[in-house]
Amino acid sequence: MSDVQGLPDLKNVANHQVRLAARPNGLPGPEVWDHTTETVTEPAEGRFVVQVTHVSLDPAMRGWLNDVKSYAPPVGIGEVMRALAAGRVVASNHPDFAVGDVVTGTFGVQEYAESDGAGVQKVHPTDEAGVPTHLALLGMTGMTAYFGLFDVGALRDGETVVVSGAAGAVGSVVGQLAKIKGCRVVGIAGGPEKCAWIVDELGFDAAIDYRAEDVRKALRTAAPDGIDVYFDNVGGEILDAALTRLRHGARVAICGAISTYNATEPPPGPANYMSLLVNRARMEGFLVFDYVEKFPQAAKEMAGWLREGRLHSREDVVSGQVSDFGDVLLRLFRGENTGKLVLQIA
Amino acid sequence: MSDVQGLPDLKNVANHQVRLAARPNGLPGPEVWDHTTETVTEPAEGRFVVQVTHVSLDPAMRGWLNDVKSYAPPVGIGEVMRALAAGRVVASNHPDFAVGDVVTGTFGVQEYAESDGAGVQKVHPTDEAGVPTHLALLGMTGMTAYFGLFDVGALRDGETVVVSGAAGAVGSVVGQLAKIKGCRVVGIAGGPEKCAWIVDELGFDAAIDYRAEDVRKALRTAAPDGIDVYFDNVGGEILDAALTRLRHGARVAICGAISTYNATEPPPGPANYMSLLVNRARMEGFLVFDYVEKFPQAAKEMAGWLREGRLHSREDVVSGQVSDFGDVLLRLFRGENTGKLVLQIA
Repeated sequence: MSDVQGLPDLKNVANHQVRLAARPNGLPGPEVWDHTTETVTEPAEGRFVVQVTHVSLDPAMRGWLNDVKSYAPPVGIGEVMRALAAGRVVASNHPDFAVGDVVTGTFGVQEYAESDGAGVQKVHPTDEAGVPTHLALLGMTGMTAYFGLFDVGALRDGETVVVSGAAGAVGSVVGQLAKIKGCRVVGIAGGPEKCAWIVDELGFDAAIDYRAEDVRKALRTAAPDGIDVYFDNVGGEILDAALTRLRHGARVAICGAISTYNATEPPPGPANYMSLLVNRARMEGFLVFDYVEKFPQAAKEMAGWLREGRLHSREDVVSGQVSDFGDVLLRLFRGENTGKLVLQIA
Repeated sequence: MSDVQGLPDLKNVANHQVRLAARPNGLPGPEVWDHTTETVTEPAEGRFVVQVTHVSLDPAMRGWLNDVKSYAPPVGIGEVMRALAAGRVVASNHPDFAVGDVVTGTFGVQEYAESDGAGVQKVHPTDEAGVPTHLALLGMTGMTAYFGLFDVGALRDGETVVVSGAAGAVGSVVGQLAKIKGCRVVGIAGGPEKCAWIVDELGFDAAIDYRAEDVRKALRTAAPDGIDVYFDNVGGEILDAALTRLRHGARVAICGAISTYNATEPPPGPANYMSLLVNRARMEGFLVFDYVEKFPQAAKEMAGWLREGRLHSREDVVSGQVSDFGDVLLRLFRGENTGKLVLQIA
C-alpha cells in the first residue's frame, strides 16, 4: 500500500513540542512557552519525518517572537517555536531522503518534524565534525561569519578587524577567519574566561572585556590605528564605541544586536553614526539566507580549514528535553554560553 | 623688479575679515566672530591675490567650528573663517593665474585672499550660469549631489529616491538628478513654499513638509513601495523615519545632519538602524573631496543638463559685507534659505 520507510517503529510515538504561548515583554520567561504533545503520523508522498537530536539556539530567535514585520514572519501564537535543528530521518516517503540520513533544517523545537525537504541539508558527521558542528562552524553560524566578514565586510588581508560577541557562535568564527587572512583581530566579550579563550585558544590578538573595561578607551589601545572592519553582533553602546574608532573606508557589518533584543524600552541608536561620514565608511546589514547559493563552496573551504586545524569549532552543548528550550535560551541572552549554544535532545 | 600684475591698484587696500573668536555652544551667535582688518600685500612668487565676490554658506561650516578631530582640522581660534568662495584675481605672481580670472577656492570669509593655486578652479561665468552657480550646481554643491547619489547611492534608473533638505543646495540637485534618471523622487522640506517649489518647479513627484506632517506616515503614502535610495542631509528624526521605509538592498547616503549640528546635548542616534539588517541595506558616509579627480567629467555632464534645461540652479544670494557672514549663516541653520545660500560681497 505505502512504501513509507521506517514508519512501523514510529506509529503512535509521542512528539513533545514547544509552542509560543504569548509574546514576551523583555526576556522570554516560562510564561511565553506552551508544552504540547502530538502523535507522529505517516509522512505523505514527498515528505519525511526527522527525529530531532540537536536544536540550535540563536539570538535571532528573539526577533521571531515579536509581532513586527521583518525578514521572516513572526512565530504565531500557538505555533511550534521556529528553530534550526539537526536530526535523523526516521520515516521517509521522499525519493531523496532515506531513513538514517542525518539532516539539518528549520525543524523547530520539537522531537519530531515532518518536512518536504525544502531548506534541508544532508550532513555527514565525522569524529572531527560531529552533528553540533554542522549547526555551528559548518552550518548557518559559520556561513554567517564567512559572508558577513568576506562579503559585507569586504575584508582585505592584513586589516584590523574588531568583532563583538567574540566568544559567541558567530563572533568566534569571525575572528578566526580574519586571523587566517593575516589580520589584526580584536574581540570584545564579557568576562575574563571568554577573553582568555579567544586569545589563548583561538589566536585573537587582543580581547576587551566589556564588563570590566571602557570599550572606547580599550579600543584605542587594542586597535591603535583604527578599525577597518567592525563585525557587530551586539549593538548598543559597544557599536557606538566602535564607531568612534573607524578608519577611512571602514566597513561595519551589522549581524545582530543581542544587547538590545530584550529591551522593554526602544533602545537608543548609534549616536556616533556620523563617524561614517567623517571616515567615508559604511554600515551594512545582511542575512545569511541571501547567500544560500554560495554555501557549498564556503562550507567546503571552512571544512578544509577545520581539517587543517586552522579553525576551531566550539559548541556549548546542553543535554536535555525539548521542554528545557526556554531555560537554555535564557543562557544565550545572559551571555552564559561560549561558542555555539546547542540543546541536545536526550 | 617684480612682475606682479595688478598690484599698484591694490596697495594699502583694506581687507576686512571674519575670524573665529570663540567656539560656539549651540547656534553660533555674534560672540563667535571677530571682525578684523588687514592690508593687502604683494603676492610672493607663485602666489596671487583674489578679491572675493561671493562666499558660499554651507552646513559643514558648523562642524569646522568644533574642536574635534574630523576630516578637516577645526578652524583655529583667531583664524579667518574657512569658506568656499568665488572671486576675481586682482594681483598675480603666478604663471597660471592672470588678473581678471574668475576663480573658486577655499578663500575664507574675507574680502581678499592670497593663494598658491592649490584647490583653485578657474570658472567661466555665463548668462545662464553666473558666478553663484559655480558655487552651487557647478561647484562643490553639485558635485556633492552627483557623487552622493550616483556613487554612494549607486542609483539605478527607475528607483524610488527620498531626499531630505530637499529645498536646500544639495537636496534640490539630488532630486533633479534622480528625475533625470527616471526615478520616483520624494523630497522632505520645511514649509509649504519649499514643498511647492520642489514639486512645481523642480519636478519632484511628491514633497513632505516635515514641519506639518508625520514624516514616517507621509513616507508610507509618498513612497508606498519603500525607498531604494535615501539621501540624508538632516539626520535626527527624519533619518530615523526614513530607515523604517527602506526596501531590500536600499542605500542610505549620509551627506550631512544639519538638524543636529547646533545641538547642545549629544543628539540621539538613528534608533531604527536595524532596518539595515532586516532589509540588507547599507548606510554610507562620503565627502565630496574624495571625488576630486572625477569632478571635470561630472561638471561637464551637469553643465550639459543645465544648458538643456533639465537641471535648474537656484541660488539664494544675500548682498552684504563680509561682516554679515554670521547673520547669514544663521539663516542656513534656521532653514530660511531655498537653494544655495551665497553671500555676495557688495
